[in-house]
Amino acid sequence: MALRHYTLDFKLSTAVDSATTVPHLLSIFHEQEMTETVHETNGHGYLGTFVGKNGRLAILRVHSHGLVTVDLQCYEEDNIAQLDNLLNALETKLKMILNGNITRIKRLPALVRGAEVDRYWPTTDDRLLEYDMDQLVYEEDSPYQNIKILHSQQYGNVLILDDDINLAESDLTYTQAIMGNGRESYAGKEVLILGGGDGGILFEMVKQKPKMITMLDIDQKVIDACKKYMRRTCGNILDSLEGDCYQILVEDCVPVLRKYVQEGKTFDYVINDLTAIPISTEPEEDSTWEFLRLILDLSIKVLHPSGKYFTQGNAQTMTEALRLYEEQLKKLSCPVGFSKEVVCVPSYLEQWVFYSVWKK
Amino acid sequence: MALRHYTLDFKLSTAVDSATTVPHLLSIFHEQEMTETVHETNGHGYLGTFVGKNGRLAILRVHSHGLVTVDLQCYEEDNIAQLDNLLNALETKLKMILNGNITRIKRLPALVRGAEVDRYWPTTDDRLLEYDMDQLVYEEDSPYQNIKILHSQQYGNVLILDDDINLAESDLTYTQAIMGNGRESYAGKEVLILGGGDGGILFEMVKQKPKMITMLDIDQKVIDACKKYMRRTCGNILDSLEGDCYQILVEDCVPVLRKYVQEGKTFDYVINDLTAIPISTEPEEDSTWEFLRLILDLSIKVLHPSGKYFTQGNAQTMTEALRLYEEQLKKLSCPVGFSKEVVCVPSYLEQWVFYSVWKK
Repeated sequence: MALRHYTLDFKLSTAVDSATTVPHLLSIFHEQEMTETVHETNGHGYLGTFVGKNGRLAILRVHSHGLVTVDLQCYEEDNIAQLDNLLNALETKLKMILNGNITRIKRLPALVRGAEVDRYWPTTDDRLLEYDMDQLVYEEDSPYQNIKILHSQQYGNVLILDDDINLAESDLTYTQAIMGNGRESYAGKEVLILGGGDGGILFEMVKQKPKMITMLDIDQKVIDACKKYMRRTCGNILDSLEGDCYQILVEDCVPVLRKYVQEGKTFDYVINDLTAIPISTEPEEDSTWEFLRLILDLSIKVLHPSGKYFTQGNAQTMTEALRLYEEQLKKLSCPVGFSKEVVCVPSYLEQWVFYSVWKK
Repeated sequence: MALRHYTLDFKLSTAVDSATTVPHLLSIFHEQEMTETVHETNGHGYLGTFVGKNGRLAILRVHSHGLVTVDLQCYEEDNIAQLDNLLNALETKLKMILNGNITRIKRLPALVRGAEVDRYWPTTDDRLLEYDMDQLVYEEDSPYQNIKILHSQQYGNVLILDDDINLAESDLTYTQAIMGNGRESYAGKEVLILGGGDGGILFEMVKQKPKMITMLDIDQKVIDACKKYMRRTCGNILDSLEGDCYQILVEDCVPVLRKYVQEGKTFDYVINDLTAIPISTEPEEDSTWEFLRLILDLSIKVLHPSGKYFTQGNAQTMTEALRLYEEQLKKLSCPVGFSKEVVCVPSYLEQWVFYSVWKK
């Protein structure tokens, strides 16, 4: 049973005395048969907690610098209309008492804590976002990661790997961006996809009749889950691990890339769709950046001189991470040029940077 | 001075006894010199409040049905690293105590309450969203509405009318959608824009050399604010209220529409870019829907028989509101057909429905 947590805040233009505010509010709590405890705050204003029936808890603070905060916790099964009335009564009374001194009144949507389906998936720069997920469709731990698929009213099924939103069925924009946003023709080309277990790139690309697509994804369980639950993304392409112009190898990409380098095999396009911090069975990664650079370096080595490498970068707000990534590009064994573009992927709720890289 | 509010929740597979959990945690609060008060909950588990120095408040609840919640409030100027350590210590200890019984651990980004710049702008269906706004660029109350422009790192300047996000400089997608997503040619056409004070539609449309665009917006202050602070959206088009192929009339659209109907004037395109609940100086609106239908009806009346009417609808999640809107379309004095499409507007953080309407 989830806990609903309401907040109601009054930001004031000047400090207020709790003696002129609190007494007017007490009757509202008493009407709800809530028991007050006043706490000693050592000069930080009034702090009262009110405990009521059914596990209800309210906290009223009149902060000494001009802020009044109210918290109200209740269980999901509680009489929500009654609690709305309680908050309405507090808001109305506070508006009256603080009249002329109010800079902002903020009453946020209730935080729902401990719900069956988790709807809070923060942005990369750690901002709070509440999604509209209503069902856990699939969850399993593979040998490599935790895999979840949740259903959203707006975004369809959403693939979440290690609690990081990967791709939703609404996100064709992502797939188009990592394929170069319609500026490339894949007909007759040799393509290597790193990762891509959701099948989105593969499904879109085979429509263009490339010569051969090789996709390397480490996690069979991701492929199986997406084959079943992400069909708006992958269509029927994951139903078979090989087709006329594609093959899916369920393998760690690093040793395969090394083998291609040794054999001198090259590709017209390399598309790196690995998770932000790629998973590997290799023991040699000293740091995330070194490992990222290893994959980048191997990818550029198997790239045809006139080929292109596409990858997702990071959230637009992660300026330091983006700068570090671009520094890695300067440290490769072969000099490269790059460009980037910012794309709005529906389910991400933050702007995302995609890179194009080529051999100089 | 803002209040930071942290939460840490453990969802459990079975209920736990507070006697086996709480005593292990108390030392963590005592180390921070926080004073415990235990509250009587009438069978709803353990509820302890802990008040510390600098206005710190912690709440620990061991709910009787298998949920442990921790709240921690502190001021923005407090030692955040120390509070992170406190939460880390609680998380580590709880993981140990509850081992084998944990369904989910959730530690959300802190809610910042009473900050100078408000970053919480919920979705239309009342979900909590934290934006990356960092500056209040402009705020004024016009005779019609509260106008705010906030700066966001990702979205540029964001126009907010009566606390509703209207348009950001990143949102060319919105303007393209309400112009028919590139399927129309405006060259040589007569166009009427209702609202549109941000200048986005006007700026994009004049590029196509229409015969004449008439824009009716009620609020001079919105136009002035956007002219100054939304230039990525409006370019220089609002610098003058008229140009070669456009005129901006700062007027309530209803009487002007009535006059056009009387005169028998028609337009090839009518684009309704009014705010979701349009503002009017007319006294006759009995209800929002009746008023919406009045504008719709007048708009269709001034539409050329082969013309098109475009408008934004609502969030995709607002299925009932969308259904009611489509019902209004069936009640017009002239029968119409319509189609809709769902568009991802970067700053909205929810999928948005746009309508095309035509005379049957």
